[in-house]
Amino acid sequence: MRERLVVVGGDAAGMSAASNARRRRPPDELEIVAFERGSFTSYSACGIPYFIGDVVTELDSLIARSPQEFKDKQSIDARIGHEVTEIDLEAGAVRVSRRGDGAGTWEGFDQLVVATGAVPVRPDLPGSEALGIYGVQVLDDGTTVRKAIDEAEPSRAVVVGGGYIGLEMAEAFKLRGMEVSLVEMGPQPMGTLDPDMGAVVADAVRNLDIALYAEEPVTHFEVTGGRVSAVVTEQRTLPADIVALGLGARPNTELAENGGIPIGTSGGIVVDRRMRTPVEGVWAAGDCTEKFHRVSRKAVAIALGTHANKEGRIAGINIGGGYAGFPGVLGTAVTKVCGVEVARTGLKESEATDAGFEHLSVTIDSTTRAAYFPGAAPIKLKLVVERLSGRLLGAQIVGEREAAKRIDALATALWNEMTVDDMLNMDLSYAPPYSPVWDPVLVASRSAWKAVEESR
Amino acid sequence: MRERLVVVGGDAAGMSAASNARRRRPPDELEIVAFERGSFTSYSACGIPYFIGDVVTELDSLIARSPQEFKDKQSIDARIGHEVTEIDLEAGAVRVSRRGDGAGTWEGFDQLVVATGAVPVRPDLPGSEALGIYGVQVLDDGTTVRKAIDEAEPSRAVVVGGGYIGLEMAEAFKLRGMEVSLVEMGPQPMGTLDPDMGAVVADAVRNLDIALYAEEPVTHFEVTGGRVSAVVTEQRTLPADIVALGLGARPNTELAENGGIPIGTSGGIVVDRRMRTPVEGVWAAGDCTEKFHRVSRKAVAIALGTHANKEGRIAGINIGGGYAGFPGVLGTAVTKVCGVEVARTGLKESEATDAGFEHLSVTIDSTTRAAYFPGAAPIKLKLVVERLSGRLLGAQIVGEREAAKRIDALATALWNEMTVDDMLNMDLSYAPPYSPVWDPVLVASRSAWKAVEESR
Repeated sequence: MRERLVVVGGDAAGMSAASNARRRRPPDELEIVAFERGSFTSYSACGIPYFIGDVVTELDSLIARSPQEFKDKQSIDARIGHEVTEIDLEAGAVRVSRRGDGAGTWEGFDQLVVATGAVPVRPDLPGSEALGIYGVQVLDDGTTVRKAIDEAEPSRAVVVGGGYIGLEMAEAFKLRGMEVSLVEMGPQPMGTLDPDMGAVVADAVRNLDIALYAEEPVTHFEVTGGRVSAVVTEQRTLPADIVALGLGARPNTELAENGGIPIGTSGGIVVDRRMRTPVEGVWAAGDCTEKFHRVSRKAVAIALGTHANKEGRIAGINIGGGYAGFPGVLGTAVTKVCGVEVARTGLKESEATDAGFEHLSVTIDSTTRAAYFPGAAPIKLKLVVERLSGRLLGAQIVGEREAAKRIDALATALWNEMTVDDMLNMDLSYAPPYSPVWDPVLVASRSAWKAVEESR
Repeated sequence: MRERLVVVGGDAAGMSAASNARRRRPPDELEIVAFERGSFTSYSACGIPYFIGDVVTELDSLIARSPQEFKDKQSIDARIGHEVTEIDLEAGAVRVSRRGDGAGTWEGFDQLVVATGAVPVRPDLPGSEALGIYGVQVLDDGTTVRKAIDEAEPSRAVVVGGGYIGLEMAEAFKLRGMEVSLVEMGPQPMGTLDPDMGAVVADAVRNLDIALYAEEPVTHFEVTGGRVSAVVTEQRTLPADIVALGLGARPNTELAENGGIPIGTSGGIVVDRRMRTPVEGVWAAGDCTEKFHRVSRKAVAIALGTHANKEGRIAGINIGGGYAGFPGVLGTAVTKVCGVEVARTGLKESEATDAGFEHLSVTIDSTTRAAYFPGAAPIKLKLVVERLSGRLLGAQIVGEREAAKRIDALATALWNEMTVDDMLNMDLSYAPPYSPVWDPVLVASRSAWKAVEESR
């Protein structure tokens, strides 16, 4: 008998699951239907700020595969503009509404993949639902914001929250010629870094002539005629023609939760290594799930395209009758903001404390190429290390061109639970156009090992 | 009683050993004398081709520390222009000649560090000792070649051998405005890569308008008035005003061997993890030693500044009464030639065969940034993998800007003996300015894992 797989959510996780299931099971054996409430399938959500900033000019270039391509190449029925509003586990059906059509119809499934992604965190403050305040999560947000800029030509932008997307949006607004303010509740933007490393990012933000207001919680939004007209903090009122939220994202689990699919302590849907939820026949993948953190050994919710693609692939392989497992995450992240490259992996100091590690840290300054080689740029590298064992717990990089991608060697070391005394002799690549003879990663490891030895 | 440490060779390995020994033992306890036959201490040998090509303009910028600085900062007596010509192990003394002074005097030692580096391989062919044929190994070679170019303004350069230094020298000559030919005995330049990857480098060489003659063994050199006037291969005669050798380097062990210090099968001086030779009180470090290869499990001779610095540091720590060990090498190397970035680590196919591994390989094409992101450049990545286990054995990268340094994540994976199925889910960094959502390293791992599964 032909089985039916229903996928809720048509971006990275959902469509990777669909594609990988299809590769192992032909259409006469498995029907695959994907419902996407937005207008696009399989797009790069991480590219949205660059599309808004006009660094990426073509919307289509962000889209890896359209519904028509899914149909033609893989016999996958991907329906955009279709929102799943209810899951009935007992009946094995989801209720689906076409955009603009309230009632909806029930669609049966044998297996279900929940890939509902994440939603931007919205502050619960007066005026926060006003027009002109944008979360930037799905590609429709990207087209909406870009259109708002093209049509209304706003001149004053305020970004609330200095996380990755907040900073990327601040830069995008700047690139579009606006006067930009960034309001951050914490002491520094980029709260995923330790404050000393975040301070370097803060300097870069200011250097780009973005007004940075740190330690200023927003109290409310002023609204004029339904539209936002200012962001108000405890210290000041910032007139705004357009506002972007950069407060991070949380798993979009309302649908799953209402349907009776268990939610974990991290706020994400509970899944095992194979991306099975505790409900037979129901899978989940991507930003809506919780992930195992390989260093803290705790469940975490991290919204990121790499995880979504990997988890979707794994769900699809398992649905298709194969075997694959997701081994967890390190919290690796990288971005380029205001000319500064920023990267991190593992635990920052406060996270290491929270996870119960006794730790120390070292920070070194080096260059991305041999100091004498033209184009050598500064790089600052921080390692957080377990004090008694010397085991690497986390790493942070702030630097200029060619700095950030070095986090991958550190992430690989972290993945393998290396100690810094083993790391310092690693055979990393060296030539003057690429690094000093002691690569910054080795310099930091050597420095950390010295700190470990001296702390005994 | 005050001990005396004599160091033979004043570059990376020798002076790192001296410095690290000094850090642990003060001058009243340990006298340190280093003899360097050349004119410089602690310089970047890898920077020489860039100095010749005028990419690096200041000679001084290549020098990390001068004899005066060693004296002032560390009470190390580093004597340039002093060549050690003989080692008498029984007497505990070395014979030292000042440059231009034949006889020499005997200098006693309690401990000896041999750090004599490497010498360029010279073809044993008629005319190979003529003037105008340069090996490029020590900084004096760099100043000599640069002076020869500045003064004689040669217009036709021939490079014999297409290894790292050969290619770098071909590019340097090109940058100095010469007509350049590269003669290579093998099918491709960059013989440290597999031929399919080397072919990409060959294209780049040709694109830079360097005449490439592959599979053309040199038969002899034409000499006019003592100076080289042409390089002759089996197929043609290439008129030459200047010739550089790029045939690689071998450990410079004549002094040690004559003194009775054991030489290994690789041609390098035998050392243990702590950089002790089999002779009590005699240490060796850097290009003159043999190294343990962590993948082939064999002794190899690899001349490279990173190893020299690490080995020197380790010898110095041990001489100083500390404890440190050198864990071996992977054969990681990187260069930038003719606009192409080239990197490798571990074993190439033929090396994997020689080492007794049953293996397969995959090659993937990807981009250095998200394909839609401005500045995305091509990257080609090859993995060599053990067939039955899926263990990574080696990796090669050829690409454009931002491609090569990704070898470090692969070197770290190799260091930890990872399998490609473990690697493909690693949490490497992703953002559109840095990589596609599946980083090329992950794409290659996924592809290799598929090949392993299908080969069963």
